[in-house]
Amino acid sequence: MKTSQSLLQLVCRAPYKRTFLRNFKLITFNIQRRNYASLENETVKTAEIHKNESSKAVNYTTDIYTHLKRNPNFKELSPDDIKFFQSILSPSELIVDNGNNQDDLIPYNTDWMKKYRGKSKLVAKPKTVAQISKLVEYCNVKKLAIVPQGGNTGLVGGSVPVFDEIVISTNNLNRIRSFDPISGTLVCDSGCILEALDNYLAEQGYMIPLDLGAKGSCHIGGNVATNAGGIRLLRYGSLHGTVLGLEVVLPDGTILDNLSTLRKDNTGYDIKHLFIGSEGTLGIITGVSILTPKRPKSVNVAVFCLNSFQNVQEAFIISKGELSEILSAFEFWDINALKLVKNHLVQGANFPLDDKYPFYVLVETSGSNKDHNEEKGVVKDGVVAQDNTQIQNLWAIREGIPEAGSKSGSVYKYDLSIPVPVFYNIVEETSNRFKDAGIFGKDKLVTDVFGFGHIGDGNLHLNIVAKSYSPEVAKLTEPYVYEWTEKHKGSISAEHGLGLMKAGCIGYSKSQKMINMMKQIKQSIDPIVSIGSKTIQTPAIEKRVADAYIGTVKFIDKRLPVITGAITPVL
Amino acid sequence: MKTSQSLLQLVCRAPYKRTFLRNFKLITFNIQRRNYASLENETVKTAEIHKNESSKAVNYTTDIYTHLKRNPNFKELSPDDIKFFQSILSPSELIVDNGNNQDDLIPYNTDWMKKYRGKSKLVAKPKTVAQISKLVEYCNVKKLAIVPQGGNTGLVGGSVPVFDEIVISTNNLNRIRSFDPISGTLVCDSGCILEALDNYLAEQGYMIPLDLGAKGSCHIGGNVATNAGGIRLLRYGSLHGTVLGLEVVLPDGTILDNLSTLRKDNTGYDIKHLFIGSEGTLGIITGVSILTPKRPKSVNVAVFCLNSFQNVQEAFIISKGELSEILSAFEFWDINALKLVKNHLVQGANFPLDDKYPFYVLVETSGSNKDHNEEKGVVKDGVVAQDNTQIQNLWAIREGIPEAGSKSGSVYKYDLSIPVPVFYNIVEETSNRFKDAGIFGKDKLVTDVFGFGHIGDGNLHLNIVAKSYSPEVAKLTEPYVYEWTEKHKGSISAEHGLGLMKAGCIGYSKSQKMINMMKQIKQSIDPIVSIGSKTIQTPAIEKRVADAYIGTVKFIDKRLPVITGAITPVL
Repeated sequence: MKTSQSLLQLVCRAPYKRTFLRNFKLITFNIQRRNYASLENETVKTAEIHKNESSKAVNYTTDIYTHLKRNPNFKELSPDDIKFFQSILSPSELIVDNGNNQDDLIPYNTDWMKKYRGKSKLVAKPKTVAQISKLVEYCNVKKLAIVPQGGNTGLVGGSVPVFDEIVISTNNLNRIRSFDPISGTLVCDSGCILEALDNYLAEQGYMIPLDLGAKGSCHIGGNVATNAGGIRLLRYGSLHGTVLGLEVVLPDGTILDNLSTLRKDNTGYDIKHLFIGSEGTLGIITGVSILTPKRPKSVNVAVFCLNSFQNVQEAFIISKGELSEILSAFEFWDINALKLVKNHLVQGANFPLDDKYPFYVLVETSGSNKDHNEEKGVVKDGVVAQDNTQIQNLWAIREGIPEAGSKSGSVYKYDLSIPVPVFYNIVEETSNRFKDAGIFGKDKLVTDVFGFGHIGDGNLHLNIVAKSYSPEVAKLTEPYVYEWTEKHKGSISAEHGLGLMKAGCIGYSKSQKMINMMKQIKQSIDPIVSIGSKTIQTPAIEKRVADAYIGTVKFIDKRLPVITGAITPVL
Repeated sequence: MKTSQSLLQLVCRAPYKRTFLRNFKLITFNIQRRNYASLENETVKTAEIHKNESSKAVNYTTDIYTHLKRNPNFKELSPDDIKFFQSILSPSELIVDNGNNQDDLIPYNTDWMKKYRGKSKLVAKPKTVAQISKLVEYCNVKKLAIVPQGGNTGLVGGSVPVFDEIVISTNNLNRIRSFDPISGTLVCDSGCILEALDNYLAEQGYMIPLDLGAKGSCHIGGNVATNAGGIRLLRYGSLHGTVLGLEVVLPDGTILDNLSTLRKDNTGYDIKHLFIGSEGTLGIITGVSILTPKRPKSVNVAVFCLNSFQNVQEAFIISKGELSEILSAFEFWDINALKLVKNHLVQGANFPLDDKYPFYVLVETSGSNKDHNEEKGVVKDGVVAQDNTQIQNLWAIREGIPEAGSKSGSVYKYDLSIPVPVFYNIVEETSNRFKDAGIFGKDKLVTDVFGFGHIGDGNLHLNIVAKSYSPEVAKLTEPYVYEWTEKHKGSISAEHGLGLMKAGCIGYSKSQKMINMMKQIKQSIDPIVSIGSKTIQTPAIEKRVADAYIGTVKFIDKRLPVITGAITPVL
């Protein structure tokens, strides 16, 4: 291995040299090329682990959120409806509640955080787009509520039913349709698992421009529907930049054929962007065309610990300046997150980091040329040696943080975009609120508050671990966290989406004018409204939470019933 | 200068080594770092040159396209209307036809290609967004047609009036609002000139992620409104990926405040994407927030000539694989384009390229590290020496192609996305059509057919030089070129937009379902329709061409009157 230059030295270049030399301590070097394929196989797969655990003990969403009322305009499932579903789907593509098969339905009714649980009696798992089109058309005519579901790895309660909505799962819609090795354009069904796509692309020398902890379970369609961000956004940009086309089943069953593979096409409005991040409220994404980048030939990783959040910011600025086009990840976590991982996931002697520094950053570089990357990203000989196991562990720390939190208790997750200078303040201030209320401590209601996230994107994940989901905790964080974010011109949902959790909170991040325009667009795609009928009826897809909000969420004055339809991601 | 490795060698790596060594000839090396700032100052500024020439001789659009009929629902300008405009705008912000000032109005009524000329009698050049809001609201109430105009550098007749539409120019809306040197986020008025922004950013160590020939004149708002592509798209992606927020005046005068600086914000539908590429038909963009990348510290350029288009493709595949993250441009042109530039622009001994090869490619690399880039992009010593002048000339060839065409005659421009394998066929086949018709040759109606463009984006610019704009030429190219493009699943507008030129041709690249959805969206934002009135009235902004198409374009059966509203870019 070539080790000609120190990453520490690189990061410590003028004018920050003195500051950084005082405050940095290099914990470990991991300069061997990261083997994407093998790493992925060993990655902690949060969602899968949780899938295998029983979810029978989870409370029904309607029992916890008692203000949610079912919209009586939606009819209940009848024997005739079931017959129709049976005429479209084979027995293996359909689960119908028969009184004895609750266990089969639970995985589709419950989210992996065990925070939300619906009461659906029918799960459809079609294999073709034509089937989905027929089912959606039928539901729309019959006024049967639907919730689309992908890998069900969402964090905001958007992918599971609230009441008795029919679940349309993309589990069986998992075909790779085409790949062009010259342009790097991949076209696939929306139910393809992210990691499966990446493994397929690896064989062609390409990679999927998106990477996140749930990659072993989440579907590409759900990623698009929620505009998932993840750890590669810094380098490859958002899905608005990489998705080239989408195929979507609209609420009236129309199949929108916008599955372009062209990198440039300026003919009319670029409709696909409406569906990216719309969380399934405007239609069900069934096909995705995406531009994939060349797989880096060389990947280097290092982790630093730092003495202040100011240092974290400085490290990012310098890394961005010096590493520029080869910087592929700049992740951060705090000591509380580290301790949780150490205690719950990676116990023993092979844990590579000391837990005595307040902040940690993981820097990854990747590029086309092994030698050049090593020159850019390599550290000196003689500092902590490394092997593959240790590299895996380093990544496992970052990717295991959400799971470590969940193992420790019931987790409140806030996914915020915040200007970097005040980025970490919300973690400290939230902790103080619990301390002041006397409910923070080892044997108290709240046991942990920690922060981690993507510095490069201004995306903080604020997590609060409690003994159980409780109004006492929620009262101290909501709307406090949302108001704080609004005050600092941030976003209350950076990458998780609104879901059921934040459906009523859009007003903290979007103006009334913007919300009005969203309503106009929603109405224009609404199959009843759009054909010009005077009677504005409730469409089948995605109004379920709008309907749910017939009740009142007292602390959120800004909730907007219609737009709260933005809550049923395919993720 | 360090010259340790040959770009030729790099490009000629296995498995293409033999093929490439046989077919490549390295014409010149330009390995000195490109000085962006000085280069820009000397760039051939096509639009500016044309602005200074008299446009009095240009025919009125309605005299050439006689099927266009003015919509009588729009009222004509009255003395009271002029008084209102005078109450909002200062004398320097307003040009009103007084019978003696035709010369002042001509630059706003005429496009730089001298293909389109309108008859507007009032040009408003507001300095503030509030003024624009008031003017648009007034026009909407009074049913006065408007055309928004930015730098007026568009190629499809979208930025000039057809009839007597009022011109709202963003010329005076040119303030930089803020720049954050940590995140690289720039917020500015839509009337800022692209090159001025780039010069501003250069001082901060950043660059605008967009570069095109008209940079000295075009406005960032027009770039966004037409989703301009240019030579940096290969590296930095489309504006859908880099634009973070927009401020837009809607047709009813509402100022939509979506000027976010957040890189991630998943709260509801991402409305801004509707305006990117909508060519001004949904509102007037007044403010832009855009993420800018770090300015490369080192830029290298080389030009190759090749013996076949197959070689051009092979060169691209290898360059993409080997240069990956530092490849910043891969431009191509054919021998006919080269000869035009040589004859009309860069005469004399300093012309650096032989005009005896059929194809030429310009490869640019840029990165954060001078040494590494030179190792990646540098060529051997001993091959044609280079100096700054020669580098300028190389870039001037590529950027001068459109101007050289215009100096040679009246140019028909087709801007196509085509799969790369059949990319160049359309140029050859179009030439053959003119030859077969006996109108192609030095003293004939058509004097030149040439192709150039962005290989990496699949974007071909097919240009036909004629003695004059003539139905005989158009008959042979339209709908032929559009049908050919449709057959190969391409786009009839890669980056120029539809404009007046292709307003009726959207059906060649978009399905009826897609067009229906665009209509729904247009109607939902339409100020009359959207408030639920039964009477669907014509809104002030942007229906002018839909209205214009009350007549019939005979050869295009797929034209769609309502959606043809997509034609008034701010560019």
